[in-house]
Amino acid sequence: MRRDAERVYVGKARADHAVPQPDINSLLVQHARQGKRVLRLKGGDPFIFGRGGEEIETLAEQGITFQVVPGITAATGCASYAGIPLTHRDYAHSVRFLTGHLKDGSLNLPWQDLLEAQQTLVFYMGLLGLPEICKQLIAHGRSANTPVALVQQGTLKSQRVIVADLGSMEQKVAAQEVRAPTIIIVGDVVKLHHKLAWFNNDHTAMNSTQRLKS
Amino acid sequence: MRRDAERVYVGKARADHAVPQPDINSLLVQHARQGKRVLRLKGGDPFIFGRGGEEIETLAEQGITFQVVPGITAATGCASYAGIPLTHRDYAHSVRFLTGHLKDGSLNLPWQDLLEAQQTLVFYMGLLGLPEICKQLIAHGRSANTPVALVQQGTLKSQRVIVADLGSMEQKVAAQEVRAPTIIIVGDVVKLHHKLAWFNNDHTAMNSTQRLKS
Repeated sequence: MRRDAERVYVGKARADHAVPQPDINSLLVQHARQGKRVLRLKGGDPFIFGRGGEEIETLAEQGITFQVVPGITAATGCASYAGIPLTHRDYAHSVRFLTGHLKDGSLNLPWQDLLEAQQTLVFYMGLLGLPEICKQLIAHGRSANTPVALVQQGTLKSQRVIVADLGSMEQKVAAQEVRAPTIIIVGDVVKLHHKLAWFNNDHTAMNSTQRLKS
Repeated sequence: MRRDAERVYVGKARADHAVPQPDINSLLVQHARQGKRVLRLKGGDPFIFGRGGEEIETLAEQGITFQVVPGITAATGCASYAGIPLTHRDYAHSVRFLTGHLKDGSLNLPWQDLLEAQQTLVFYMGLLGLPEICKQLIAHGRSANTPVALVQQGTLKSQRVIVADLGSMEQKVAAQEVRAPTIIIVGDVVKLHHKLAWFNNDHTAMNSTQRLKS
């Protein structure tokens, strides 16, 4: 990005003032029409819960040319920095990314499709939905012993990884001060965290101690 | 990577001489034990069908420290360059990565879990398994009209994107010379390709023409 570029903030940091998606789409068109070269900078990957598709649909409709640069989506970044492989010959033959974002206080997910033991699940934006996610997975038949990790501020110095199982995660998280952004990883691959955690090991050690005490 | 680094090739380009995974794990340990700083360079992301977990498990067992750098996995790279968003408010609320690699000539996948219309499926290494994937998805109840894209050599200049539906894809691919590496994307998001394709548009145009003729 050019240092002298004009910057237009449309992000989520100030929740009250977040710019609605249609307005973001319009802003892109408006600036491009002024003959500017526009960079839409996002965290993560634009095509995985990034709404990049909607933005370039608008551009395509308006005849504005564009390019897409892929990025490291939160699931991948957090998995790497938490030492949790998303697939693994012994534990998981597939991985699925979902959103745990509540709509009207509830989660409308295809629980019946989420029960297979050899499937890793990654929930984006799932902090508020966490109790419901654990409850529903157990209610539909996934074992209460299934390991779960909650990764807070993954890849940052302040990263925290809280590990429990579907049966105990709600209580464990309630006892701590956890804030967004988080992602939730469900599946046997989470077992590998204690062996493979390499980043920010102070926190990991702390969490391990907490786990032993609890 | 240092220009003067010693390079040890363990990749898949020469299929006959591919180094078995346990040997790769041992090589990492062996070089690290010699006091070298070892970079294990991979395409894609090490934790998504990359066997990175197995490699660092070996390192952890041997007390060798490591770091993991996430990468752009094939699904994400190919989706971006093919103009196919993996999630989209109107078409897909989740995305699942699987392998379409045949074992003993067949695919052992949880077909029953792959039927939901609002789920994008991405199959890695699925070229040989393609007929079986299409057949099984239809047999288990996913609509034969479900759009499918096969992306060959995604993100490269030579990228080709072949679009059809579950019912017609096998025949369409059989009529062309398609080679690995490929990924297969299944779901309504594939409909957006014709609108959003921005890379290598000659090929896209050619494929569109082929589609009209066929």
